[in-house]
Amino acid sequence: MADFVRIVEVAPRDGLQNEARHVATADKIALVDRLSATGLRSIEATSFVSPRWVPQLADAAEVMAGIVRRPGVSYPVLVPNEQGYARARAAGAEEVAVFTAASEAFARKNINASIDTSIDRFAPVLARAARDGVRVRGYVSTVLGCPYQGEVPLTEVVRVARRLHAMGCYEISLGDTIGVGTPRKARAMLRAVAAEVPMAALAVHFHDTYGQALANVAACVEAGVRVADSAVAGTGGCPYARGASGNAASEDLVYMLHGMGIDTGIDLEALAETGRWLAARLGRPTGSKAGQALAHA
Amino acid sequence: MADFVRIVEVAPRDGLQNEARHVATADKIALVDRLSATGLRSIEATSFVSPRWVPQLADAAEVMAGIVRRPGVSYPVLVPNEQGYARARAAGAEEVAVFTAASEAFARKNINASIDTSIDRFAPVLARAARDGVRVRGYVSTVLGCPYQGEVPLTEVVRVARRLHAMGCYEISLGDTIGVGTPRKARAMLRAVAAEVPMAALAVHFHDTYGQALANVAACVEAGVRVADSAVAGTGGCPYARGASGNAASEDLVYMLHGMGIDTGIDLEALAETGRWLAARLGRPTGSKAGQALAHA
Repeated sequence: MADFVRIVEVAPRDGLQNEARHVATADKIALVDRLSATGLRSIEATSFVSPRWVPQLADAAEVMAGIVRRPGVSYPVLVPNEQGYARARAAGAEEVAVFTAASEAFARKNINASIDTSIDRFAPVLARAARDGVRVRGYVSTVLGCPYQGEVPLTEVVRVARRLHAMGCYEISLGDTIGVGTPRKARAMLRAVAAEVPMAALAVHFHDTYGQALANVAACVEAGVRVADSAVAGTGGCPYARGASGNAASEDLVYMLHGMGIDTGIDLEALAETGRWLAARLGRPTGSKAGQALAHA
Repeated sequence: MADFVRIVEVAPRDGLQNEARHVATADKIALVDRLSATGLRSIEATSFVSPRWVPQLADAAEVMAGIVRRPGVSYPVLVPNEQGYARARAAGAEEVAVFTAASEAFARKNINASIDTSIDRFAPVLARAARDGVRVRGYVSTVLGCPYQGEVPLTEVVRVARRLHAMGCYEISLGDTIGVGTPRKARAMLRAVAAEVPMAALAVHFHDTYGQALANVAACVEAGVRVADSAVAGTGGCPYARGASGNAASEDLVYMLHGMGIDTGIDLEALAETGRWLAARLGRPTGSKAGQALAHA
């Protein structure tokens, strides 16, 4: 059996929430359905964070109502708290994701709470999710640097990841929110967390702000991680560096993994076509180099 | 002493020769002089291949006459044969580069000769260079794939690299001309060559057609290579995939290496500024993500 990496496709949520151009609800539904047809197993479909914070995703319930739930595919949605969880459940979500940061300064500015307070707010979400049989994914942001405090202590990344895992998150996604990491730092961070949380419960989530995303994923895959987040067409941008690149592009990641002899279950041509379709809706060229090259191959 | 990687900046040659927009001679001279002010030690300045093949670089002699030769900086130029070597020397070149391919089909289509015939043509260049005290760099293209024959046997890459080294090339640059390689294949290729040619005489040269360039360099640096070719602003494109990305962007590479604790001697801010300056002359945004992010940081 070939080695396998599961890709968590985050374009419909992390990608779109940072894109300036408004995307129609029907296009969001079409995006998720196109993605689920490529062989992806996990697609983060939308966010139940308040529309005041993320206006692009104000139609979360309509998106959840419109998508076709393909057997074997998970459609996690982001929830900020119990109210968000209730809205997500009412919309039929069967998996949710909660989020905090490894940087105290980032948590206070972006979640309006200390790291520990933000985690305390999840406690009831995790308790209800356990009762409901709903799986919970946990995001830790700013694991390799923070736009406010700069360096983020590795001990904090480990502490926060361990706490989310202990609270019941089945998977912890370690996010380099501002894309400042490089391969050796990414690998050292992963290894430090994996010393305390099982590697099988870890995912990596890189942004391509400085062009490092794929090199970082490769280093982490070589170190043993088997789940990686990415966004088709490299959608996402970065609110802390205007005009900067977004998430690791799923097409480039799939191209790399397949070239490394690692299976993903994904049809690269179909994924690249979906990326170009999405880019057209966003009114710009695809942010995926493989997507661009395959269009001319 | 920190670990050191020498970057061979190829924008003025490999970058510009694949850019559609004509660049004025004065701008080429300014580009080389700006690059040499960043701390780069090796800058491929131009090409003495026939202007019929590379019209963008028809002003090679004028460029060589115009640049300021900074002490400690090498300015290799591409030469196809003895006539090219003579023109390069008349223009004051003190280092030259010769080129062949690891793919027989690519050599026949692009050099109009078999691999072995193309190497035989270098013999007099290398003999004259030895007498003149001129260093010769050797390029092997299509080391990880060929647009005509697809797979390229690793044994051919090793054979060609070994032959160039035995003939007197002080450094062999292993080029993934069409950017199809991925990290494990890149590393395996490097290791196979390094079993026959000293690692200290090897360089890697990746194109970013499928977004893999930086991940490939990282894998090769971890495997021991200490010289990498790249082009500021990610210039270059790919004649075999229209609209595709060019060389590995020097700014992204320097960002990565510095983040890995590896010195390059290069001032990243100055390099990124030069990349944006060049992109403006080419009438497009910089192809370097670090260059873009640093502009907004």
